[in-house]
Amino acid sequence: MASENLAAALEDSTRQGRVYLDYAATSPLLPCVEQRMVNVLHELGTGVLGNASALHSPGHLAHEILEHARASVARLIGAEPDEIIFTSGGSEANNTVTNIFAGQTQIVSAIEHPSLLESARQRSGKLGVLPVDEKGRVKIRETKLTKPQLVSVMLANNELGTIEPIEELRRHFPSACIHSDATQAFGKLKINVKDLGVDYLNISAHKIGGPAGIGALYVRRGAPYHPFIVGGHQEQKRRAGTSNPLLAAGFGAAADWAWDNWSCRRFVSVANLRNLLASRILREIAHSSINGFEQCIYDKENQSYNTLPNILNASFQAAEGESIQLYLDATGIAVSTGSACAAGDTKPSHVLMATTGDAEVAHSSIRFSLGLDTTKDDIDRVMQVLPSIVQYLQSISTIKIGEASK
Amino acid sequence: MASENLAAALEDSTRQGRVYLDYAATSPLLPCVEQRMVNVLHELGTGVLGNASALHSPGHLAHEILEHARASVARLIGAEPDEIIFTSGGSEANNTVTNIFAGQTQIVSAIEHPSLLESARQRSGKLGVLPVDEKGRVKIRETKLTKPQLVSVMLANNELGTIEPIEELRRHFPSACIHSDATQAFGKLKINVKDLGVDYLNISAHKIGGPAGIGALYVRRGAPYHPFIVGGHQEQKRRAGTSNPLLAAGFGAAADWAWDNWSCRRFVSVANLRNLLASRILREIAHSSINGFEQCIYDKENQSYNTLPNILNASFQAAEGESIQLYLDATGIAVSTGSACAAGDTKPSHVLMATTGDAEVAHSSIRFSLGLDTTKDDIDRVMQVLPSIVQYLQSISTIKIGEASK
Repeated sequence: MASENLAAALEDSTRQGRVYLDYAATSPLLPCVEQRMVNVLHELGTGVLGNASALHSPGHLAHEILEHARASVARLIGAEPDEIIFTSGGSEANNTVTNIFAGQTQIVSAIEHPSLLESARQRSGKLGVLPVDEKGRVKIRETKLTKPQLVSVMLANNELGTIEPIEELRRHFPSACIHSDATQAFGKLKINVKDLGVDYLNISAHKIGGPAGIGALYVRRGAPYHPFIVGGHQEQKRRAGTSNPLLAAGFGAAADWAWDNWSCRRFVSVANLRNLLASRILREIAHSSINGFEQCIYDKENQSYNTLPNILNASFQAAEGESIQLYLDATGIAVSTGSACAAGDTKPSHVLMATTGDAEVAHSSIRFSLGLDTTKDDIDRVMQVLPSIVQYLQSISTIKIGEASK
Repeated sequence: MASENLAAALEDSTRQGRVYLDYAATSPLLPCVEQRMVNVLHELGTGVLGNASALHSPGHLAHEILEHARASVARLIGAEPDEIIFTSGGSEANNTVTNIFAGQTQIVSAIEHPSLLESARQRSGKLGVLPVDEKGRVKIRETKLTKPQLVSVMLANNELGTIEPIEELRRHFPSACIHSDATQAFGKLKINVKDLGVDYLNISAHKIGGPAGIGALYVRRGAPYHPFIVGGHQEQKRRAGTSNPLLAAGFGAAADWAWDNWSCRRFVSVANLRNLLASRILREIAHSSINGFEQCIYDKENQSYNTLPNILNASFQAAEGESIQLYLDATGIAVSTGSACAAGDTKPSHVLMATTGDAEVAHSSIRFSLGLDTTKDDIDRVMQVLPSIVQYLQSISTIKIGEASK
């Protein structure tokens, strides 16, 4: 019965178009970004642009593109241009920050991105890990380590969407340097580095409709710094490697678009679709649960949310997340289990283990991540097939529902 | 008189088109690369391509682009695809290799790229530096350090074009791992990692008409390895960070073009233009000299050269390199002093200091680097203005010619 329902639902859904609900992994390029990059590609083809470090005209033109992009990115997060270092992305930035404090005492949250956690594990002298509550909110007080040199807590979690109280870190660790990985929050929350009180913060272009392969690390003027990729004068001697006018131009165009068009309020419609999906999952699918916040609520006064408006993480008892994902993909719907960065890994998500302590919940989870282009139709498409997929997987599972082992 | 000649020459030259002789800093994109990247940009814009790590169809498509590019790059240097790690470029690769042997004994040549030298300085336990002769050829025997864990010598020097005897390293250091930075040699010499006997070798896309921002690190199967950017499963857990189908596609297209069209012989015409420029400089400009090999000779039998066919480094006594470069740029001719990676630095080139020991020679040097599109007209254009520029600078210099201080 469950398998017949599934076959009918799959057949029906497959005839319809594709649905992309993995914006948190990577966002499609904005049209203005694509156009800008096509133009730069052409200039690179005709040789108008040289190496941005060179002291001749083709070099100057490349340098100008780079600095224009730097200014665009800086103003978007309330930084000065010279406080922005372009990196190859978020993982390099996370490695860079932990490496500044190599051999020193670092405190991180339990649900940081693997590139932060692993680098801190390898490079810190002493490492303290802050636990989180069941929604993924960091428990700032629960550490025995006093006087850390670095405290690193992400602005919003990439699997749950949970927003962390970064402003409180400064009060609790007055003498530490504060770092926040804002990769997932970027483009969804208003980010101002001065208001947040951070010394370091990093963002990635491809999470806001820019190209993959470029990110920015904010380093407050006067904050300790030591290059990670050494041996070049680029980025004011803070990051060696040939500069990249093509990717910088794309990043700058995405930042300019956001400056002109973005508002926190704009994501209210995305939050509504996310909340609709959450309600329908809980109502229409037996033994389902939401990880993190069930509803995303817009705080008009502070122009903020209680959780990211675009991420919904749900678990389906006795149905394996990876199987759900593959069935959804077969009907043209793209979602992810946990984060793309850990995809293909058989270990349960460290984020869900930290919030729930339950490997079965972690193994049965799906992350839906929405974008400004997501429609109610997309949600309908998901709910047209998801109940049958889950029901079928539950029917063939060896795990008895209600007896899930911890 | 010198200044009148200069004004006339500049005026005449400026009316003509631009001449690009800085291919070693970055090469214009090949038309096929530009076209391929425009197509991928469009796919990224429409959302056809997802995160290459994701387990859904848009992710698979991105993954396929990545793996196709990896295979193209691998075959070009005689490697297996799983021996290729994509990096953000040469500097990251050099940092990665020296970091594998952190705390251990490393031997490098005196004329390595700054990203290799600086990383080895910071990360090695003991560091030996091999001197070079007056042409820039490394003196393999001149080290007191025995049993190094890593020996790192570039395949061809980026400022002089001098080719190093990599095959001899294995014989002299039988138990060491061997690394060669082949960034500048790539696309000019035939590179086969097995014939060279190296454990590690790195190349960069933008030196062969591909995009900046992506390079490849060859790691021989079984060679020691430890990731530098940690905390992600990408590149078989060897390099964390979102994969980049756009840049990989461009790199792959450039590699495919080279596979179909490249031959060592093809650069004979480039070598001839380089040699013509060398002869004319020596003949027409007083107090000039060539650094490295005066003539580039093609060895038909081995399909090889004595020095890179596209690089010529010259010094002009009592005329500052940076001033020469700026005057050339004013007439539309792009060249560099030393390497672009050190541009803007006021220290004399460490490469020329290692070969000549003469700061004045180092300060008065210019690197001309040619490409397959360079014509005899380009060389004529240079020689139309260069003698007047040098003569003028010599006429106003405080350094007495013939009395240059060491």
